[in-house]
Amino acid sequence: MSEISMSEIPITEVQASGKLHVIGIGPGHPDQITPEARAALAAATDLIGYGPYLDRLPPGPAGQRRHASDNREELARARTALDLAASGRHVAIVSGGDAGVFAMAAAVCEAVEHGPEVWRALDLAVIPGITAMLAVAARAGAPLGHDFCALSLSDNLKPWPTIAQRLRAAASAGFVIALYNPISRARPWQLGEAFAILRGHLPAATPVIFGRAVGRAGGRIAIARLDEADPGLADMATCVIIGSPETRLVERPGLPPLVYSPRSTGGAGG
Amino acid sequence: MSEISMSEIPITEVQASGKLHVIGIGPGHPDQITPEARAALAAATDLIGYGPYLDRLPPGPAGQRRHASDNREELARARTALDLAASGRHVAIVSGGDAGVFAMAAAVCEAVEHGPEVWRALDLAVIPGITAMLAVAARAGAPLGHDFCALSLSDNLKPWPTIAQRLRAAASAGFVIALYNPISRARPWQLGEAFAILRGHLPAATPVIFGRAVGRAGGRIAIARLDEADPGLADMATCVIIGSPETRLVERPGLPPLVYSPRSTGGAGG
Repeated sequence: MSEISMSEIPITEVQASGKLHVIGIGPGHPDQITPEARAALAAATDLIGYGPYLDRLPPGPAGQRRHASDNREELARARTALDLAASGRHVAIVSGGDAGVFAMAAAVCEAVEHGPEVWRALDLAVIPGITAMLAVAARAGAPLGHDFCALSLSDNLKPWPTIAQRLRAAASAGFVIALYNPISRARPWQLGEAFAILRGHLPAATPVIFGRAVGRAGGRIAIARLDEADPGLADMATCVIIGSPETRLVERPGLPPLVYSPRSTGGAGG
Repeated sequence: MSEISMSEIPITEVQASGKLHVIGIGPGHPDQITPEARAALAAATDLIGYGPYLDRLPPGPAGQRRHASDNREELARARTALDLAASGRHVAIVSGGDAGVFAMAAAVCEAVEHGPEVWRALDLAVIPGITAMLAVAARAGAPLGHDFCALSLSDNLKPWPTIAQRLRAAASAGFVIALYNPISRARPWQLGEAFAILRGHLPAATPVIFGRAVGRAGGRIAIARLDEADPGLADMATCVIIGSPETRLVERPGLPPLVYSPRSTGGAGG
């Protein structure tokens, strides 16, 4: 039965090695998921991810399994996915935004480095997505229009003095600052403290953008001056962008203002 | 002839106000253009952009006009687009990568701020895309896995001392650094000088990733140690990512290494 053998060979080979795709599904709106990510999701036998991210996806092909987890224990989730892939499954880890920005791709790489040798032989691919700061910036104008940085405000994984020092360095050097993970029930004071630090380095009128769940139901943009910015406008689903001394706000009658950071500079931060 | 009038009214209204969409089409592969961007491109009466970006797009609907320009004169291009929109056209400006990262969205906002009042009343929207550093990072592993910054190395729009100072600040504070516009015929020495500056602040073995035209024909990834990084590996279509002192390289037999920046830190840069 050579025809059956022929068709079985590639299947067996795939199952022997397995695959792991780490997929960014963008900030929330289905129309911001790339075709590349959709195809990778559809090809997987197993989807692994934080429950609300999985819930955003359309139903997969028949037989596809979904493994929902909470949003902690990223390393354990990465190991589960690698184990499944090593057993021959075609596994997709689902990340909100971009998989490589404060998301699962780094946890997977870390697990590979410290895991069994067989994990290094797996077919591993990261599929990029629209990360939150890009979606928030687009809705506000062009606040990331010149040099900028992205910083997680979570001190679960690094000490607060490191975060504080990075905030000072970035603001002093003239970078626009995008803050991920600005606040949570377990970390209620860090965003207020970050604003306090930044007020020591930036003009009082520096625009601050709070972009919450942009592209999803309940999404909204709020803009404040740095000296009046209220940390209460942020939650775990918010990305906060703080301008540089050069960032400008353009009022528009009957429309939200535009916030942008000009491409050219006279030398601020230099 | 009330039926004709009825059908003309909405058209007239649209033409009176006009629309301008600034659209990021991602790093080059058609499967990395979001459905949102595709829909916005298809709805436009006029596409404006750098010729090679327009050439990547499938043919538009009948009657859609394409206005190709060179990659300079961004402000002039923005003004042309705003003028067309103000005349009632539905204009799409096409940017490679994300429209808000070293691209056209900031030029459009700048033109609006300094242009005629009517431009502030236009229906203006920015559609985000996959920016180059995300695509390059995905191909390499997760080098942007912790705090990072994005910096244009072009000194056409800001003085070199500002760039040098930002490089020092970012490296000292522990940010991974993504460099856009690393080199061109008119700016041949800046990338080499940037590497020289960074060698004073980062370990010799710090991984440097050169991602050229990722997702397009001729695309490639090259990885080097900082002390051996050759600026000749970069061109205008390259995004260069320089790790932090914590960025790691994981060798894989028969596969390219993974480069990643761990989510947790012991306090480097603090």
